[in-house]
Amino acid sequence: MTKLKGELLYEGKAKQVFQAEGNIDQLILSYKNDATAFNGEKKAVFSGKGKYNNLISAKVFEYLRDKGVASHFVRSLNDTEQLVVKTDIIPVEVVVRNIAAGSITRRLGIEEKTVFTPPLVELFYKKDELGDPLINDEHALLLTDVKSEELEAIKVMALEVNQHLQGFFESINLTLADFKLEFGRNAVGDIILSDEVSPDTCRLWDKDSGAKMDKDVFREDLGDLLQVYDAILQRLEAVV
Amino acid sequence: MTKLKGELLYEGKAKQVFQAEGNIDQLILSYKNDATAFNGEKKAVFSGKGKYNNLISAKVFEYLRDKGVASHFVRSLNDTEQLVVKTDIIPVEVVVRNIAAGSITRRLGIEEKTVFTPPLVELFYKKDELGDPLINDEHALLLTDVKSEELEAIKVMALEVNQHLQGFFESINLTLADFKLEFGRNAVGDIILSDEVSPDTCRLWDKDSGAKMDKDVFREDLGDLLQVYDAILQRLEAVV
Ligand SMILES: Nc1ncnc2c1ncn2[C@@H]1O[C@H](COP(=O)(O)OP(=O)(O)O)[C@@H](O)[C@H]1O
Ligand SMILES: Nc1ncnc2c1ncn2[C@@H]1O[C@H](COP(=O)(O)OP(=O)(O)O)[C@@H](O)[C@H]1O
Ligand SMILES: [Mg+2]
Ligand SMILES: [Mg+2]
Repeated sequence: MTKLKGELLYEGKAKQVFQAEGNIDQLILSYKNDATAFNGEKKAVFSGKGKYNNLISAKVFEYLRDKGVASHFVRSLNDTEQLVVKTDIIPVEVVVRNIAAGSITRRLGIEEKTVFTPPLVELFYKKDELGDPLINDEHALLLTDVKSEELEAIKVMALEVNQHLQGFFESINLTLADFKLEFGRNAVGDIILSDEVSPDTCRLWDKDSGAKMDKDVFREDLGDLLQVYDAILQRLEAVV
Repeated sequence: MTKLKGELLYEGKAKQVFQAEGNIDQLILSYKNDATAFNGEKKAVFSGKGKYNNLISAKVFEYLRDKGVASHFVRSLNDTEQLVVKTDIIPVEVVVRNIAAGSITRRLGIEEKTVFTPPLVELFYKKDELGDPLINDEHALLLTDVKSEELEAIKVMALEVNQHLQGFFESINLTLADFKLEFGRNAVGDIILSDEVSPDTCRLWDKDSGAKMDKDVFREDLGDLLQVYDAILQRLEAVV
């Protein structure tokens, strides 16, 4: 079941996006070894990183599929590539926060580790030139073609995904502090979860030691990123 | 009908707030001559400015009272002071934008003078130390004691005030590009419009020349601020 890559449609900071040969509605996401942080200001290459994000993200999307979440994921192709449904990405990053960490602590003066009950949903305009600014619902309607009902549905889906992901990471002894999602419209216009869910896009803390096991290891120079991503994959392979 | 000032309760960037003698539920707002911009980074004193803001804000609140808007305004006391109802200010600045200008053009890459239909409502957390950051509704519920229904009511009120203010400024040949409001709870817990509505808190453009007739004259060093504020007061006195 190999799949031939067609044209390179787009290259982002973390992935290359290829047309899938033989199915105009599918894409091949090819995970790169690049790590970027602080809106691209900090950069590095970790050979092997693409494999971890691809395999971990695939496991997450398989789990979410079992839970009934509509997503772009079709199947893994190899260590660094996966087949997905092509979507028209809504340029809004949807962040769900269970526990305060990162930018929100500085932006709003909220103490790190503050628990959000209910979880907090934030929207950011996906626009590198502007540094992905925080937006409100009205901005999202103004800046993108998302409809008001779609935005509500996206927020509901994001909170459902949060419930599922908390259980998923709990099973490998990780606390899910926060994460970022992207949504897109498929060929018939339904909104489905797209992009990736990986230690690059989640804050994951070991339940015993409290150690950070995500891209913060890179952001804050806390240790060996690949070792941490490898530990996550091993825990997942032992459980799922 | 003079009113004696009691204790100085609070001094802000633009006003001193005194307890009103003889009525625990009332305050005297005393307008200062200070101008500040860019979160206090740019400062100057314009002798006479307090008078203009006090008298213009009083005229605005009298107009809004005639339109049925519930506010803190009781009456003018003298050139620089007005009597208001004491409120528990909700630390959220409510900005209504009819036309793009100022921070939003840089923040979201929206071209200056873009018309917002419907008008855009933005919330900012009123916290000088944080630089009054943009927030969404969930942040407002988290950071302040405002209730969800109150927040909805505040946004409805802000849009109603926008309708009234557009008519008000239209009558003196000014376009209302945007403005900032503050709301507070009175002694019985009702939410009423508070603070000031003045050329310090509105963007006002002359309908004929397009000239800026508001605090942008100070922010952008466009000319004589007092002359501009005086022109607004004169137009108001000629009409209202
Ligand atoms: N199913 C999909 N259909 C179309 N585009 C997608 C899909 N999933 C993810 N993308 C997009 O692929 C691009 C590449 O991903 P990435 O390298 O993470 O980009 P970025 O630098 O924007 O974060 C992104 O623009 C992302 O939104
Ligand atoms: N009716 C009111 N009751 C209580 N406080 C008020 C009322 N109206 C305005 N205020 C508050 O008065 C303070 C002084 O105003 P100002 O000098 O403009 O302060 P700031 O520096 O916060 O902008 C502000 O905190 C404002 O919110
Ligand atoms: Mg990405
Ligand atoms: Mg003020």
